[in-house]
Amino acid sequence: MTNTDEGKVTSASQGATVDDAVFGAVCAKADAAAAAQQLLSRANTEAKNELLDAIADALDARADEISGANELDMIESREAGMDAGKLDRLLFDVPRVAAAAQGVRHVATLPDPIGEIVRGYNLPNGLRLQQRRVPLGVIGMIYEARPNVTVDVASLCLKSGNAAILRGGHAAQRTNAATLGIVRDVLADHGFDPALVDTVDEYGRAGATAMMEARGHIDVLVPRGGAGLIQAVVRNSKVPVIETGAGNVHIYVDRSADLDKAIPIILNAKTQRVGVCNAAEKLLIHRDVAAEYLPAIASALVQAGVELHADEAAYGIIGSAGIEGANLLAATENDWDTEYLALKLGVKVVDSLDEAIAHIAAHSTGHTESIIAEDYSAIEEFTSRVDSAVVMVNASTRFTDGGVFGFGAELGISTQKMHARGPMGLREMTTTKWVGYGMGQVRR
Amino acid sequence: MTNTDEGKVTSASQGATVDDAVFGAVCAKADAAAAAQQLLSRANTEAKNELLDAIADALDARADEISGANELDMIESREAGMDAGKLDRLLFDVPRVAAAAQGVRHVATLPDPIGEIVRGYNLPNGLRLQQRRVPLGVIGMIYEARPNVTVDVASLCLKSGNAAILRGGHAAQRTNAATLGIVRDVLADHGFDPALVDTVDEYGRAGATAMMEARGHIDVLVPRGGAGLIQAVVRNSKVPVIETGAGNVHIYVDRSADLDKAIPIILNAKTQRVGVCNAAEKLLIHRDVAAEYLPAIASALVQAGVELHADEAAYGIIGSAGIEGANLLAATENDWDTEYLALKLGVKVVDSLDEAIAHIAAHSTGHTESIIAEDYSAIEEFTSRVDSAVVMVNASTRFTDGGVFGFGAELGISTQKMHARGPMGLREMTTTKWVGYGMGQVRR
Repeated sequence: MTNTDEGKVTSASQGATVDDAVFGAVCAKADAAAAAQQLLSRANTEAKNELLDAIADALDARADEISGANELDMIESREAGMDAGKLDRLLFDVPRVAAAAQGVRHVATLPDPIGEIVRGYNLPNGLRLQQRRVPLGVIGMIYEARPNVTVDVASLCLKSGNAAILRGGHAAQRTNAATLGIVRDVLADHGFDPALVDTVDEYGRAGATAMMEARGHIDVLVPRGGAGLIQAVVRNSKVPVIETGAGNVHIYVDRSADLDKAIPIILNAKTQRVGVCNAAEKLLIHRDVAAEYLPAIASALVQAGVELHADEAAYGIIGSAGIEGANLLAATENDWDTEYLALKLGVKVVDSLDEAIAHIAAHSTGHTESIIAEDYSAIEEFTSRVDSAVVMVNASTRFTDGGVFGFGAELGISTQKMHARGPMGLREMTTTKWVGYGMGQVRR
Repeated sequence: MTNTDEGKVTSASQGATVDDAVFGAVCAKADAAAAAQQLLSRANTEAKNELLDAIADALDARADEISGANELDMIESREAGMDAGKLDRLLFDVPRVAAAAQGVRHVATLPDPIGEIVRGYNLPNGLRLQQRRVPLGVIGMIYEARPNVTVDVASLCLKSGNAAILRGGHAAQRTNAATLGIVRDVLADHGFDPALVDTVDEYGRAGATAMMEARGHIDVLVPRGGAGLIQAVVRNSKVPVIETGAGNVHIYVDRSADLDKAIPIILNAKTQRVGVCNAAEKLLIHRDVAAEYLPAIASALVQAGVELHADEAAYGIIGSAGIEGANLLAATENDWDTEYLALKLGVKVVDSLDEAIAHIAAHSTGHTESIIAEDYSAIEEFTSRVDSAVVMVNASTRFTDGGVFGFGAELGISTQKMHARGPMGLREMTTTKWVGYGMGQVRR
């Protein structure tokens, strides 16, 4: 920290300040990463895959170091009163390290996007033009205490020819340091610059603030974590950001829906895993089938322990159905914009497909929505008019996932429209470069 | 304007303030544009092309209205002391309106990117997954007094299914208002909502500031104009920005270069049109050929009226060549980072290909660079290691242009890596949406 105000720059509307010395140190790390990335960007796929396999082997061989560091992080966080869910995400014991190592080996098997010719054609003057896929450069990642993300991001960045600057959160600091130490050892052993994967954890929050200011040093910043973290980065970053995550996910049951498809899909979307961004949060049902379908749907949800927040019409139908053990509440306006991330589901009866689409437009976070229907035109309308990253038809919203989509692993799920939309895999971590091969052509 | 401080929000580090009333009005326009865009996004290509042809016809038929408004803008700007170059860009007389109308007809003939299946495959569980190209939504454009941009952007946005919110600068306000009035009349006549193309010019600078704050209302903001304008938008916008424009463009003459290719390419890149972003600004030449090639290259440039800013070695060679009328200056460090946009060229002798690449990495704006060489490996190294939007081989840098690339027209030239890189045509004005067709699939 400097002792004068000279080193402080007011950043964005929240009035966050960036420490001059920390900013300089973070930029120096990013610049070293960029220089190293220039070499990595030309490494062939074989060399990158061998590197990843070696990282996986080293993680397995030195898993005790990581789990030992993690035990200290766990103790500190437990003493600080961290809740059980977060403690579980923080846990990085030997089996979890082994699973992460296996993930790295899987990334090694994925196709390399670098070098792909996206478009290529000759201009009328004979200039041979090619649009090639190249790495983005230096990817900054700001995330919360989930040590497996450190391994995922490092492997995805290296495979796609990118460098990574990580801010992994205070709670996992020892775990991440041990993990990165191993990754960097392997990089050095294989003739790569360890600067390719670096952390700014030692600077605490000031490190994250500096990353957001480091335009021209970091090419893209990806926040991953709670809505508060993501919004803070989106609002304050001068570096281009890819917004990820929040999912106020809707399922619409059309009047043409097949109930035998609807019940398992709704149940799966809500309960197969709670607290994830692709879990269903809202159920919209067409008035024509509400009285017939809602009691059966609600009964299945209640049996799975789901609390229902129902609008007036849905409350009336479910309330009169006499479902044993039902936890039924009257929904408030606030419910429609809430991502519960819990065993809760908002339920609303709509008069039409149009009303369902309008409700989604007004309240969705643009992550994933699903329609349950058999009517062709209703499905065409829904899929073309709902403006979300993923629209499912007669399928669970839980499929919105880089692994499920066949990307092998994911950096996150983009809910913005620029650059990438939906699950982000290796291809989404690239940009393009145009190369024109001429024989002396000049412009007339 | 409000009378209290309540309506003012401090925005970003420059301390710009956004007026509450203006912000509300701009968001209302953007929201109306978004609602109208939902319908446009489903319009078929035929309907969009008919609309564009009708706009072109109306521009021709009512060109007098536009040129009349433009005369008033020209008088005011001339009286305000606008320089000749800017006055020429501001001029929008009947022949220029006709040329712009012809551009709209050309956009109508371009392939429609909307609906393209970017990827599509079945998941192992049978879910049919498709990644489709869809419009971005509401595109905000902040540009300086160039009335033809108003027509270009409107036609590109409509063809690609997007809405446009424009801030065209004070100097062209009457011209833009007349142009937009015609476009909006045609929209209404063809059953489209005129809200699809709107301006915030009536709010002056406060309108531009409000656009930068309108995250969630405007999907992407594209600044087009001088470096000052672009940097102000990049630094202050909360809306995702596509950075365009600045080109500190390099030509590297390798020791394997063919002088008969080098001279016409350098001359073309520097002088075919001055003051554009794809014009060459720097010449790097390998030491092994500098003494032989530089006198001939310099002589050609001097004949074309180019002032040379040479480093010590180049100064020595060119100075001793005794070129008649040579305007030769010693380059300062500042030269290497300057985009002259004038008949000036920085000239530097480098010891190696590596030094050329390192110099470009340190000083380029990432727009376009060109290598003149016959050596295969030097070309491979240069094209793979130079990290710019476009890398030319034995060809003029002036080819970096949406029209030349076959895009028909361009929104601008992106010098950033996210979303789009290089000339931005219709495809670059889209995002994608995933649609999954299932038969009841749930996640295990």
